[in-house]
Amino acid sequence: MLSAAENDFYTQVGPGTPAGEMLRRYWHPIALSNEIRNRPLRRRILGEDVVLFRDDRGRLGLLVLRCSHRGTSLEFGHMEDGGLRCCYHGWLYDIEGRILEMPGEPPDSTFKQRLRHPAYKAQELGGLIFAYLGPDPAPLLPRYDVLAREEGVRARRARTVNCNFFQMIENSVDQNHLKWLHRTAKTPTWDDGEINPQPFEYGILNTYTRRVANKRYAHINYFVMPTMNKTGNVEEGHPTEHRASSSGEVMRWRVPVDDTHAMHFTVEFGAVVDGQPVARIMKDDSDQGLVETEFGVYRWDDSIGWFARGDQDRVAQESQGAIYDRGTEHLAYTDRGVILLRRLYKESIEAVQNGRDPIGVIRDPAKNKLIRLIPREEVLD
Amino acid sequence: MLSAAENDFYTQVGPGTPAGEMLRRYWHPIALSNEIRNRPLRRRILGEDVVLFRDDRGRLGLLVLRCSHRGTSLEFGHMEDGGLRCCYHGWLYDIEGRILEMPGEPPDSTFKQRLRHPAYKAQELGGLIFAYLGPDPAPLLPRYDVLAREEGVRARRARTVNCNFFQMIENSVDQNHLKWLHRTAKTPTWDDGEINPQPFEYGILNTYTRRVANKRYAHINYFVMPTMNKTGNVEEGHPTEHRASSSGEVMRWRVPVDDTHAMHFTVEFGAVVDGQPVARIMKDDSDQGLVETEFGVYRWDDSIGWFARGDQDRVAQESQGAIYDRGTEHLAYTDRGVILLRRLYKESIEAVQNGRDPIGVIRDPAKNKLIRLIPREEVLD
Amino acid sequence: MLSAAENDFYTQVGPGTPAGEMLRRYWHPIALSNEIRNRPLRRRILGEDVVLFRDDRGRLGLLVLRCSHRGTSLEFGHMEDGGLRCCYHGWLYDIEGRILEMPGEPPDSTFKQRLRHPAYKAQELGGLIFAYLGPDPAPLLPRYDVLAREEGVRARRARTVNCNFFQMIENSVDQNHLKWLHRTAKTPTWDDGEINPQPFEYGILNTYTRRVANKRYAHINYFVMPTMNKTGNVEEGHPTEHRASSSGEVMRWRVPVDDTHAMHFTVEFGAVVDGQPVARIMKDDSDQGLVETEFGVYRWDDSIGWFARGDQDRVAQESQGAIYDRGTEHLAYTDRGVILLRRLYKESIEAVQNGRDPIGVIRDPAKNKLIRLIPREEVLD
Repeated sequence: MLSAAENDFYTQVGPGTPAGEMLRRYWHPIALSNEIRNRPLRRRILGEDVVLFRDDRGRLGLLVLRCSHRGTSLEFGHMEDGGLRCCYHGWLYDIEGRILEMPGEPPDSTFKQRLRHPAYKAQELGGLIFAYLGPDPAPLLPRYDVLAREEGVRARRARTVNCNFFQMIENSVDQNHLKWLHRTAKTPTWDDGEINPQPFEYGILNTYTRRVANKRYAHINYFVMPTMNKTGNVEEGHPTEHRASSSGEVMRWRVPVDDTHAMHFTVEFGAVVDGQPVARIMKDDSDQGLVETEFGVYRWDDSIGWFARGDQDRVAQESQGAIYDRGTEHLAYTDRGVILLRRLYKESIEAVQNGRDPIGVIRDPAKNKLIRLIPREEVLD
Repeated sequence: MLSAAENDFYTQVGPGTPAGEMLRRYWHPIALSNEIRNRPLRRRILGEDVVLFRDDRGRLGLLVLRCSHRGTSLEFGHMEDGGLRCCYHGWLYDIEGRILEMPGEPPDSTFKQRLRHPAYKAQELGGLIFAYLGPDPAPLLPRYDVLAREEGVRARRARTVNCNFFQMIENSVDQNHLKWLHRTAKTPTWDDGEINPQPFEYGILNTYTRRVANKRYAHINYFVMPTMNKTGNVEEGHPTEHRASSSGEVMRWRVPVDDTHAMHFTVEFGAVVDGQPVARIMKDDSDQGLVETEFGVYRWDDSIGWFARGDQDRVAQESQGAIYDRGTEHLAYTDRGVILLRRLYKESIEAVQNGRDPIGVIRDPAKNKLIRLIPREEVLD
Repeated sequence: MLSAAENDFYTQVGPGTPAGEMLRRYWHPIALSNEIRNRPLRRRILGEDVVLFRDDRGRLGLLVLRCSHRGTSLEFGHMEDGGLRCCYHGWLYDIEGRILEMPGEPPDSTFKQRLRHPAYKAQELGGLIFAYLGPDPAPLLPRYDVLAREEGVRARRARTVNCNFFQMIENSVDQNHLKWLHRTAKTPTWDDGEINPQPFEYGILNTYTRRVANKRYAHINYFVMPTMNKTGNVEEGHPTEHRASSSGEVMRWRVPVDDTHAMHFTVEFGAVVDGQPVARIMKDDSDQGLVETEFGVYRWDDSIGWFARGDQDRVAQESQGAIYDRGTEHLAYTDRGVILLRRLYKESIEAVQNGRDPIGVIRDPAKNKLIRLIPREEVLD
């Protein structure tokens, strides 16, 4: 059980909060590349309202939402003349927040040199736009394999979730829920299994061992700080096959919008060897943009008599409450991954408070050529 | 006029509030029997979220909503294996909150014996499910005639009301509104009448005397603690007939959902004598379940040029505000029923605070064979 | 930049607030005449809920919303017997708040003489209903030309805006936004221009000088305390013509509903000389009543590739936030109108606090025959 103060410690994401400051030391996806079109895109991330755009020279800009002049939203601005121009009185900003024009100011005014609009960094990789809201110098944007590998096909998907991000990542370090929340006709034949979460360079290495059809299998995947996991699916027909709709390697990000909402980004990569796809991957939904979901509304799947596989995690997570009050939880032996996650968060928050980088931040280009994390299913006996 | 503290005293229903603790000493309807189907039913009552279900042995269970493990809502659980199983990690609860299974715990773990999930009592009578949220020992579930009489037909109806329950029960001890709020072409011919509310064993005996068509009639009905009333309608064509759509005996419950919402349950009973119905009763709407209404949205009846009879009370009650601020009220001679109601509430609250039962609680089975309350219309001259 | 306390000073409108008390010294439109029909009309103005009606003798009444008896909304009352009768228990109020009947009170009761329901004043002019919520004696209802002139045609329009009124009136003293917010294919050929706001008897005389098609034009219009402006449009084809849909004289009122909503009333007047209309005016929309708009939802105009002219101000104003936090503003040389507006508000608020009338209040009938304010476009060279 956590006290109210401890619960706040892990769940609050705004500027100046312990976890919020720590999270600001990482790059987070904020949009699909396809969402950047001919109008600025308003987003909310880590409790801050921002506007994302590509200027007329093709550069990505990420500015605080409201105009420094008189507060009108820059989401209604015009992308022109080398920047983003506020619709109200024509102030023109470049992607770094410099004010290029202040129409109507006297010719000798130095006001526009003296003022600077708050701007953040944005970069693109693998069909996602990433944002960095922390202090300079920014670390490197990690080149995770699903984003950076070249010989293959990639699919993306993004949707909102209507609860605090931390209960989402507690789910992803908790392999024990697979048998229950995602139950199928086969899962009752699994034994209860055992999870073995261990710290590794970027977060947590999860091993989930269970007996299926008279063999023991170890399912291995990764939780990557601060909000990601990397998993892979076995092929259809495999004994541990589990209603997966695809068999590529998948990375998922849970990006806090504010304390009670998150964006869930998924990228799947399927290698192509000698012109042949190695895995079947999901459909790319980039053109749908960030799909809004509604709290408490889930798709039903008549074929299994329960909620559809793609909404089951949201059923469990949202119904814990907008911000789950861990003052009533009772952690058990099966929650060792959750306990380790909280330890890593605490260490990372304290690292930031002491002026150091949190776990997994990359600043050495040599380490960032390709971050390869290989999820797998091993037969133990 | 009431001070803000006095207003809170009568209107707050959550755990630990004066009225909330008093209300917890009674059984309240929480659902229609027909609503209990093959999925658990989520409800909110007295400011608490609960889940109602029938286990695979047919027993009713009423548990606090969120799983004791990690807080996922049990409304998404599975009724199986002698209890309700949380969808997230498979913890299995019986109807009394005992934990039958904790999958994945070590074989020698005693955790499931040491933990108990908060559970309340539920009973069924007359097509309603009743809940008791108070301390042990629970009193008897009162066998009011409309619920327990056998030779006859019964109809039920349930809907939500979007305001505090107390302004609803002030309405039911206030016969004076009948002539005005429920006006018809005939009511202007009534004189102003006089109400005479008197305490009786279970609450308030209301007498409303008025002159109609040159005769004086006394309309007699009952307010039953804590939220009910028992009324009857005269037959169509009777001089005091009042647009009633039925002529059976009717009991109504106003069950607080929280401080600003209530559930309104209606049960009508019509005796059948020698195979002939004595009264025409309303249509049974059990299959519709608890009908959600919307604040400020009322059905209009063109035939009377005003709101439909069934929504008129909700017009008056909801428009007093979500919680009527009685700091601006001006009670008059006609409000003696309201004043008596508040006195009975105060006495009952103080009784509970002093360790005694509030008014009308029944613990003697001999008194509970059948609680017969006979509403009637008497000709006085 | 304003401190939080300074921001409150200008933006709060409820009873007892500095600006709220000042605003209560003026008449404000509250409805279109056409909206007063056979049912009472509920409105909210300056943070107070009221009900507007015409009694069965044709007199306008404006009463505080909730019945003095037990708080049911008088919007559901009946207009009859010389007043407005509450639907719940039949208390009958006249337009001045006197209680004409209290059905059921003993014959010798003096309660209805001793109690008085809060009532405000209402008057009609030019197709609008005006309300006065301040202390007696009320000033005169100003006979602005668009309301009181006779030889001509008049059109009216009313809609809600979903933000604080003060950012709306800051917009109306800020001519500098015309070139940018209302940009057309022609506005880029204007020079930046210069505004010259000056105090005058009723508020601010705005002069906006800019070079268009090689000539300098001075556009002259008026801000009228406390929330109005008076403008005129040039005829179609004029060099400074600016997508105006009409060419009459226009007055606009922004009436606070509460701190985060306003009603925007527009009246246009086009003189008719010798039977010929001098100006083309907009369509009268009185029959639509007060049109509700939705925060953040604006009509798009494909012909200009941006929001429709009629919604552009709402785009700029609402997106400043429900109550714009001026703690982040940076006023420039172009904001001299905004600065003067705040000075006049401060002077008017202090005048009221010192027992004097605020700017522009009229008590001398000789001054109120017709208040003629002539907006115009002058060629300077």
